[in-house]
Amino acid sequence: MFKIALLGAGRIGRIHAANAAAHPALTLSHVVDPVAEAAQALAQETGATVATLDAVLADPSVAGVIVASSTDTHLDYCLKAHAAGKAIFCEKPIDQDLARARSAAGALAGARLFLGFNRRFDPNFQALKARLDAGSVGALETLQITSHDPAPPPVSYIKVSGGLFKDMAIHDFDMARWLLAEEPSEVFAWGSCLVDPAIGQAGDIDTARTILKTPSGRLCVISNSRRSGYGYDQRIEAFGSAGMARAGNVTESTVQVWTESGAAADRFQNFFLDRYSDAYRQEMAHFADVLAGATASVGYADGVAALALAEAAAQSVNTGKPVRL
Amino acid sequence: MFKIALLGAGRIGRIHAANAAAHPALTLSHVVDPVAEAAQALAQETGATVATLDAVLADPSVAGVIVASSTDTHLDYCLKAHAAGKAIFCEKPIDQDLARARSAAGALAGARLFLGFNRRFDPNFQALKARLDAGSVGALETLQITSHDPAPPPVSYIKVSGGLFKDMAIHDFDMARWLLAEEPSEVFAWGSCLVDPAIGQAGDIDTARTILKTPSGRLCVISNSRRSGYGYDQRIEAFGSAGMARAGNVTESTVQVWTESGAAADRFQNFFLDRYSDAYRQEMAHFADVLAGATASVGYADGVAALALAEAAAQSVNTGKPVRL
Amino acid sequence: MFKIALLGAGRIGRIHAANAAAHPALTLSHVVDPVAEAAQALAQETGATVATLDAVLADPSVAGVIVASSTDTHLDYCLKAHAAGKAIFCEKPIDQDLARARSAAGALAGARLFLGFNRRFDPNFQALKARLDAGSVGALETLQITSHDPAPPPVSYIKVSGGLFKDMAIHDFDMARWLLAEEPSEVFAWGSCLVDPAIGQAGDIDTARTILKTPSGRLCVISNSRRSGYGYDQRIEAFGSAGMARAGNVTESTVQVWTESGAAADRFQNFFLDRYSDAYRQEMAHFADVLAGATASVGYADGVAALALAEAAAQSVNTGKPVRL
Amino acid sequence: MFKIALLGAGRIGRIHAANAAAHPALTLSHVVDPVAEAAQALAQETGATVATLDAVLADPSVAGVIVASSTDTHLDYCLKAHAAGKAIFCEKPIDQDLARARSAAGALAGARLFLGFNRRFDPNFQALKARLDAGSVGALETLQITSHDPAPPPVSYIKVSGGLFKDMAIHDFDMARWLLAEEPSEVFAWGSCLVDPAIGQAGDIDTARTILKTPSGRLCVISNSRRSGYGYDQRIEAFGSAGMARAGNVTESTVQVWTESGAAADRFQNFFLDRYSDAYRQEMAHFADVLAGATASVGYADGVAALALAEAAAQSVNTGKPVRL
Repeated sequence: MFKIALLGAGRIGRIHAANAAAHPALTLSHVVDPVAEAAQALAQETGATVATLDAVLADPSVAGVIVASSTDTHLDYCLKAHAAGKAIFCEKPIDQDLARARSAAGALAGARLFLGFNRRFDPNFQALKARLDAGSVGALETLQITSHDPAPPPVSYIKVSGGLFKDMAIHDFDMARWLLAEEPSEVFAWGSCLVDPAIGQAGDIDTARTILKTPSGRLCVISNSRRSGYGYDQRIEAFGSAGMARAGNVTESTVQVWTESGAAADRFQNFFLDRYSDAYRQEMAHFADVLAGATASVGYADGVAALALAEAAAQSVNTGKPVRL
Repeated sequence: MFKIALLGAGRIGRIHAANAAAHPALTLSHVVDPVAEAAQALAQETGATVATLDAVLADPSVAGVIVASSTDTHLDYCLKAHAAGKAIFCEKPIDQDLARARSAAGALAGARLFLGFNRRFDPNFQALKARLDAGSVGALETLQITSHDPAPPPVSYIKVSGGLFKDMAIHDFDMARWLLAEEPSEVFAWGSCLVDPAIGQAGDIDTARTILKTPSGRLCVISNSRRSGYGYDQRIEAFGSAGMARAGNVTESTVQVWTESGAAADRFQNFFLDRYSDAYRQEMAHFADVLAGATASVGYADGVAALALAEAAAQSVNTGKPVRL
Repeated sequence: MFKIALLGAGRIGRIHAANAAAHPALTLSHVVDPVAEAAQALAQETGATVATLDAVLADPSVAGVIVASSTDTHLDYCLKAHAAGKAIFCEKPIDQDLARARSAAGALAGARLFLGFNRRFDPNFQALKARLDAGSVGALETLQITSHDPAPPPVSYIKVSGGLFKDMAIHDFDMARWLLAEEPSEVFAWGSCLVDPAIGQAGDIDTARTILKTPSGRLCVISNSRRSGYGYDQRIEAFGSAGMARAGNVTESTVQVWTESGAAADRFQNFFLDRYSDAYRQEMAHFADVLAGATASVGYADGVAALALAEAAAQSVNTGKPVRL
Repeated sequence: MFKIALLGAGRIGRIHAANAAAHPALTLSHVVDPVAEAAQALAQETGATVATLDAVLADPSVAGVIVASSTDTHLDYCLKAHAAGKAIFCEKPIDQDLARARSAAGALAGARLFLGFNRRFDPNFQALKARLDAGSVGALETLQITSHDPAPPPVSYIKVSGGLFKDMAIHDFDMARWLLAEEPSEVFAWGSCLVDPAIGQAGDIDTARTILKTPSGRLCVISNSRRSGYGYDQRIEAFGSAGMARAGNVTESTVQVWTESGAAADRFQNFFLDRYSDAYRQEMAHFADVLAGATASVGYADGVAALALAEAAAQSVNTGKPVRL
């Protein structure tokens, strides 16, 4: 049994707390959060103790920490946890500032740090990856990643989110890197504000199309929208020399209804915590493996690389030109 | 070029006329119908001449006839056309009276008679048959035939239709015989009147489930309803020792629409003349082959066998017991 | 927190133990099994104590028992547990002997007994039921239940299973009763041995088609096979006056692959413990509700009714005639 | 009845000849082709007469011409036919040279010219357009057009094709214009040679991703490949403010086969003449309407606009920058 502490008792922190509590090899020992009530409530639910960060880091019985606090604290907490010899499960993004993230790379070089790009752990995307690795469609040539949210977040969130690319498309950049298994060398993106003018007034875009190009000429299109009108649309098509593989959306049930107006299938799972609930469980299982000595399958360098793509895409939108990485 | 005459200028006759006119090896030379205006109109559209049955049969230049007149004339016309040496394309059913149909079998023994069980010519059911013949699902064990009409015909038609089994399920009995490639030896059926009480008052049922059993123990379920509420539902599932093959419905287009309420596919083709338009064309092509010397792939004996199953099913509903053939 | 005891540490018992252990309102306190090693191992995994049935029933702190022992003990254990004042979560079937099950009904009249017909708790079948209750397809008229196992059990199991209808189709009889919301009054079934002659030599069938008829004339077809060749096939189609609703199979992932030979979707979940893992969790949640005072949504009378249908179907196969209930 | 002449007896000319011959309001009177045998053979099949272009244009009984000759003759023949007062059904593209096409616009200003962008007449894309026009997905915001050929043409053809954008993507540019109902103002494209190095050596690309942007900020991605490995992939997704509509591929049949390895649907129709056979028929029906006085729904200006987009996309690939139109 590994004792682990949770930093951050918000929405995603609560998910991780429940998964940690349910994992046979993990014990959630401490919850840390500046909001005392949130920490207290979650600690009570999970049988953990409320603590301060310093106390957690000083406690030699704590083997690892989950960094699920606000984004601006991620880097700082990772550095401290690493210095204290803890294994780290850090939520994405590693930081909103690429230069800062790069400058910390040295200090975190030997860290046992698992970066929570949850989509890599989704059973559907894992099945897609397995098909590609097995050569089911020959050599991979191009990708189409569709990633549309059901509805936009509040503008207050948009303002501190880091923008569509760092906040939302960051997952898609990671998917692209994971599936292409080749670093993109050029990025082009166009963005628009079609969903809500308030998003534009906040300095962001809500709709984007991005193309990544790799040195070998492979192409990946990413389609982003802050609002779909039909649920959480998370699909990937992979085109290879011998065919095409697709990971589709997950519906709430398999029920279909036929009436005079046609066939109606059930809705897509509409909320990322539903769609990716299995993925979050698998993440925790992987963190347990990391605590037991395994190498994290996705780490700090992956976070920096995805952030670099996000920054390049934003720059492309601003300059109207492709950006070379 | 073979000159052929059409007997019956009604709905199905008009379909056959158009297909005959469009076929490069066929010329529709004559139209025969007791309703002079119907005959005249169709003749004009297709460049044919209005004629009497006697004149057509006496004309040595006419190679074949299409019997698309009312069901009670089918047998008589077939006998006359065969006596006159004509090839025959006869609409189903061969007759409503099994004893009468059987008694004519001798006289029609050598006839070049093609019986129009159109579903055998549907590209989807043909693809299903090809998969079964290729062993794609191993040895065929059981069948599920779903055959629901969009909406019931007028009660006036129900009264002269011969009943649900002879009028509607006759196609399904033929499909079962064709796919099983083994004659059913027992029939059990339950029928109900759930769609419209007027159908019950007319002495018929509108809903039925029938099971056919073959000597080797294979089972076929036929699901019939006079009204689906969602279009023309024509599907077959074939279960074999190594899998399952299914021929599905045809939608009006491939368009699907996703909104908050889920995914909506287009409607099924709602009318049998749409759904089976390709099948009718292929039937005419087969009749051209028969005129050129080929053996009809479905003939008088098939019509009698399907009729016998229909009569047995009706008897089962009446007696509440299985009927042995 | 309710303390509950598990009777039976076999395959299904272990599932229930894990779900009970994970439920926030339940504590699995005792495990009872004649095989000491099985009881010991499961107790250790779940933090429970090994105990005898008598000790469990005598312990006033135990609020309920899960009867997951061999079928021949179900009735006896239920009677004892009820006499001891425990709430009961009993696995299906209630018994293999209809007369015996009926004779115990009186003694269990007031029992807080929840019968584990797991399919009622499957999210897909629940969504189907919700659609029917909401009138999405108008008035329900007919049902088509497809229930094919991936592969037959060992013949040694077949011999003590009670036969295809009591062992396998019992679930489908319960689904039919649940969805029709009307008791079937007549049953007709044909059975064959097409999968494995050894099953026939053991006195059972491996393939069946059953029709249920209700007093109002509604019809339900049940399709059973001990072997599909393509996974666990568990589907229901419900035909109503205004349309059709269908609950389909669950695939292992949403991945599809297109190559020259067509589109290949992923396999169906192949094992009932996978397909119904959510259902088992929901069952345990319902048992927690029952412990808290709720009425069991499915109880002893449902078990007897399904058993009566199974016995009638078997009798119909034996006599070749419909059986009136 | 309108008499029409066919210019060009090649592959697409033969399709148009058959459709013209089958149309009740049209008579194919003449076939013109420099290859005497081709002209002769097609004339014989369709009951037409072999003629020269001059003779056809001089014949006052000829109401219209179908320009299905080689691309380099399109513009010249259109100008001559218009000067002779004929209605024109011209195959795409109008020309390979944008400047030349633009310079002829004046001379063809009043022409009754129907440009054969066949995809506008595909029933699936028409159903998609109808849904968009009906507001089924709210206001259209973005488009995803997938257009992959089954296999590349011979390199000899590539060399004279005008390049991927003018030869293949020209259809997609037209689809984008038709569905967006707003002229794109900027184009960005990246192209690669991933399918066959010989295509690159011929100066062309075989894989491309193009983004179109409109003045209102709407975005359209076009995905092109000369080789899919899985058939003719022709799909469009349209994202609106209230949902998404999709027109999918057409399979050869509705048959699906389930085995241990999963569900296999039938192949996509693999050849454009199959996939678009209905569209070609509808084109001819529209030309009959044009001959009867209707305005062509797609004309010369549409051909020029699509060509301009193709040229811009090629320029973007060459310069590595977006191109403003």
